[in-house]
Amino acid sequence: MEQWNREAVTKTVERALDDRDLAAVTTAVRPLGSAEIVEVLERLDNTERAVIYRLLSKEQALEVFEDLDPSLQSDLVGGLQKDDVAALFAELDPDDRVELLDELPASVARRLLQGLPLRERAMTASILGYPQGSIGRRMSPEFVAVRTDSTAAAALERVAAHLVDAETVYVLPVTDNHRTLVGVVNLRDLMGAAPETRIADLMERAYPVRASDDAEEAARRCADLKALVLPVVDNESRLVGILTVDDALRILETAETEDQARAGGTEPLRRPYLTNPVRNLVRGRVVWLLVLAVGATLTVQVLSVFEATLSQVVALALFVPLLIGTGGNTGNQAATTVTRALALGDIGSRDITKVVAREFRVGLSLGLLLGSLAFVLASIVYDTALGTVIGLSLLSVCTMAATVGGTMPLIARAIRADPAVFSNPFISTFVDATGLLLYFLIAKVVLGI
Amino acid sequence: MEQWNREAVTKTVERALDDRDLAAVTTAVRPLGSAEIVEVLERLDNTERAVIYRLLSKEQALEVFEDLDPSLQSDLVGGLQKDDVAALFAELDPDDRVELLDELPASVARRLLQGLPLRERAMTASILGYPQGSIGRRMSPEFVAVRTDSTAAAALERVAAHLVDAETVYVLPVTDNHRTLVGVVNLRDLMGAAPETRIADLMERAYPVRASDDAEEAARRCADLKALVLPVVDNESRLVGILTVDDALRILETAETEDQARAGGTEPLRRPYLTNPVRNLVRGRVVWLLVLAVGATLTVQVLSVFEATLSQVVALALFVPLLIGTGGNTGNQAATTVTRALALGDIGSRDITKVVAREFRVGLSLGLLLGSLAFVLASIVYDTALGTVIGLSLLSVCTMAATVGGTMPLIARAIRADPAVFSNPFISTFVDATGLLLYFLIAKVVLGI
Repeated sequence: MEQWNREAVTKTVERALDDRDLAAVTTAVRPLGSAEIVEVLERLDNTERAVIYRLLSKEQALEVFEDLDPSLQSDLVGGLQKDDVAALFAELDPDDRVELLDELPASVARRLLQGLPLRERAMTASILGYPQGSIGRRMSPEFVAVRTDSTAAAALERVAAHLVDAETVYVLPVTDNHRTLVGVVNLRDLMGAAPETRIADLMERAYPVRASDDAEEAARRCADLKALVLPVVDNESRLVGILTVDDALRILETAETEDQARAGGTEPLRRPYLTNPVRNLVRGRVVWLLVLAVGATLTVQVLSVFEATLSQVVALALFVPLLIGTGGNTGNQAATTVTRALALGDIGSRDITKVVAREFRVGLSLGLLLGSLAFVLASIVYDTALGTVIGLSLLSVCTMAATVGGTMPLIARAIRADPAVFSNPFISTFVDATGLLLYFLIAKVVLGI
Repeated sequence: MEQWNREAVTKTVERALDDRDLAAVTTAVRPLGSAEIVEVLERLDNTERAVIYRLLSKEQALEVFEDLDPSLQSDLVGGLQKDDVAALFAELDPDDRVELLDELPASVARRLLQGLPLRERAMTASILGYPQGSIGRRMSPEFVAVRTDSTAAAALERVAAHLVDAETVYVLPVTDNHRTLVGVVNLRDLMGAAPETRIADLMERAYPVRASDDAEEAARRCADLKALVLPVVDNESRLVGILTVDDALRILETAETEDQARAGGTEPLRRPYLTNPVRNLVRGRVVWLLVLAVGATLTVQVLSVFEATLSQVVALALFVPLLIGTGGNTGNQAATTVTRALALGDIGSRDITKVVAREFRVGLSLGLLLGSLAFVLASIVYDTALGTVIGLSLLSVCTMAATVGGTMPLIARAIRADPAVFSNPFISTFVDATGLLLYFLIAKVVLGI
């Protein structure tokens, strides 16, 4: 099989669109798989997307629609005939439907819901009942469960009856007589077992999540366990749905985009980069930039306090960017390491004292290394007094920065704050102001001014 | 089912270990699932880990070993009996075995390989033939393939015969008579089809990766496609293995730890945070910190050039941290956004001109907003001349920083450089020095000094 070339296909399509040669567009797009068509669509603008979408075969259209980002789905809905939209909407899985509903204007959402067949409407409503952001809202209610007292043969029959409509049949939740989850059984084990084997003897431990759990945490658990399916239960441990690994991957993709954006001090983009107008990019950044700039006026104030010291020894100003830069880097290193360890579950918020102790020692070691080096160099190039100031400042700034940088993510986790508040730029700004204070205090003492 | 409490169990285990009460440890650990035991083991030190491991049942021990990080597997191997290790090693899947081999001392690796049964040794050797870092080395050779001219019934028989030894049976690669990959077929579709249906009529498009492809890129493709299995082919498109989504998740977890560490300017940790001695943490950070500090001496040099200007207008020094901080933040925002868009495949290196144009416009807009605001404020607090300097400097620094920050990740991708070289701290350092230069040049012109 040939590996496909997205760039070449996109170029062909764009050229054909420019020439208004719809036949050529169709020829280029029709042989592609739905994943490939989605990759092409994500690079085009709204109108181009709608044109291409209408050229797809009916079957392709549904597959492509399912794979599109909900924000792009919602754009497309605006450009299609009412009847086509209703038909598409009825074909979607209940969990995908709820995601799209959240993107659509309320009036459109209501109309679409009312047009659904009764069974589909009921399933959609059951998901809509869970709070936004919970895994209940993203799970699939279309699972095939089997009972502990059933047999392998009976379970395989159930699977055969639900091959088409079930979200997956490869891992089946096992329940007792009261719909309480007691385990899971793999299709593979069912197929390998003697027909009369009881499910109770084939099932494995399940790692359930609660429907009210945060969607991102549930998805991360699924990825951590490398599980194809996690059962979702209510507060009474009754089975209410399943989370499949593909849906978990979708949730994590969005969550990581958000986390990384916030760590970089921007609001996450809600659509692919190239489909965003420049004003959206500006809007996503300007607020944090302003907040951080206001925070940075703290450094102006600290420096104003020491303006007299500065005018006496102008040389002190030369090292300001170096010192606060190193402090910022040390803080970010610590924050990055601790944030990742938190994400992987290697540490939890109850480890805060251990982490503070470790980061203090790491910062002290780094400060000793960099500080002595700077002392020697600055003493040679300038004089011992300035060397002492720079060396001691680096020592204290590194220690402070690593401790602060390592602690912030844990505090954020402990108080369940928006991680944006403790982003790397925030840590830099905080460390900048504190570092300057340390620097000038040390300078005043050492230089006796 | 109860959701388990890792903190409580770990505490119980640690207390029992302190009391040397092995019976209590066994009671606490035995009822846990392997994923849970792994989470507990990751929080303990080497000796504690070895003690607990030896208390597990034989079946548990294998499962837990398979789920452990290769670095911890390698630690454990050191603490176990030779015979136990050989038995464990023979039970591992070929791809997991190769990962462990890469961690072990060469002499141990050689001895273990020679002790393997012939068939296992052959399979392991075939994987070891691919270059390190390629997906060939992480794929599984234990797949069940079916032929296009075969039937659903025959394929189901093949599945039944390989239920135990195959890596997965839920998605089967389809080949022609020459072992060339032509598609994939889902077990679900096989089970739903009439027995005589030809595979050619059931199969779907496959999205293969090449064995020589980078492991991380292949794993990301698997996650992007939300595929349970990607077939792996050689350069002649012949099927040589499969990549399953759980292995893809494992690869991505390591890759993301690396990427995030490097973006934060540290070397990635090779083991869980709490199991790392402080000196490892220091070693992982000191090199980059030094490199960045050396880079930051550039700022000292820029400032030295303007020392005369500085001593004439000391007030200029007050705004240095604010200006370079804002520049660094703007650069990091752009770099974060572009890096994420690259990772998601929304843009590629051929989009560099589009990205530069967009980021230039974003930077200009941000600069205009912040610059005018700063002009007004600084004119009120200080004077119009200083206000003009600050305003114009912010305008130029923001434009420059967004353009540079947005372009760096694309350049890194285009020249296939280690992303560490273009980390956020690196961008900050570069932007700091350039920003200072712009600031003082503007100051000299506007203030006429």
